Amino acid sequence: MVKSFRVLYLLLRLLAAAAALSAAIVMATSHDSTTLLGITLEAKFQYNPAFEFLVIANGIGFCYSLIALFIPSSLLSRLVIMFDVIIAMLLTAAIAAAGAMAQLGKNGNTHAGWLPVCDQVPNFCDHAMGAMICALVGVVTYLLIVLYDVHMLLSPKLLP
Amino acid sequence: MVKSFRVLYLLLRLLAAAAALSAAIVMATSHDSTTLLGITLEAKFQYNPAFEFLVIANGIGFCYSLIALFIPSSLLSRLVIMFDVIIAMLLTAAIAAAGAMAQLGKNGNTHAGWLPVCDQVPNFCDHAMGAMICALVGVVTYLLIVLYDVHMLLSPKLLP
Repeated sequence: MVKSFRVLYLLLRLLAAAAALSAAIVMATSHDSTTLLGITLEAKFQYNPAFEFLVIANGIGFCYSLIALFIPSSLLSRLVIMFDVIIAMLLTAAIAAAGAMAQLGKNGNTHAGWLPVCDQVPNFCDHAMGAMICALVGVVTYLLIVLYDVHMLLSPKLLP
Repeated sequence: MVKSFRVLYLLLRLLAAAAALSAAIVMATSHDSTTLLGITLEAKFQYNPAFEFLVIANGIGFCYSLIALFIPSSLLSRLVIMFDVIIAMLLTAAIAAAGAMAQLGKNGNTHAGWLPVCDQVPNFCDHAMGAMICALVGVVTYLLIVLYDVHMLLSPKLLP
């Protein structure tokens, strides 16, 4: 029982690390360009603070997930759980900000006079969508990790 | 010691409820209009999905905070803690999405051709900023509530 919980914990950490790394890489490599009236317009993640935030937050999430892999579960402490919650909130903030921008890029906002841009740079939008799906996997995984933390705390017999 | 922790817990729940309610009300009542070339343009929170999300998420946060006020701390269970974490993540997502839109409204994005609009509707932007400050207080309070939950679980002697 203890061993299977430990294996589950390591798998969740690995999945979170993989999801965060994938989200950061897919977003960081997203690029597209279009030509309008003879002018070439480029789309890069660096051009939007929300997409930059997604890359940075998932980079932090990846590094933390790797470090947390080597923390023995017998040391499951206030600090680790609080860091798990903070990383979960950081990743949630990143996907929400990027999601708001992606929605705007796809549909625009007529009230503010912001036109949709995804028709012009479809490859960039597809990449951004892929990055957000990876980031969502990371967020859900961190929710499961926090659930694991709480379960372990309430069932101390399961701790090695 | 037990009593002072219980008072702190109730104060945190009250603060979270007040912050969430304030954020929802300030955002829901934000309104401004401007006239450009004889056409009157209006700014309302309903015109932007991210601002609508802020109102809904903080409304949920307010209701949950009120309900949680009446849960005795002796019943601090997996479910309450998980709900605390989920509400913290929901409020974080709301403030991140609204923040991304507020930043865009203030600075625009030349690469996407999205012009800043806060110069035209300054009252709306001030209200949105006020709502986000209230929402931020709610997010920080929920982080403290989760810290309290974890502390209580690791120090069961503090539970009544």
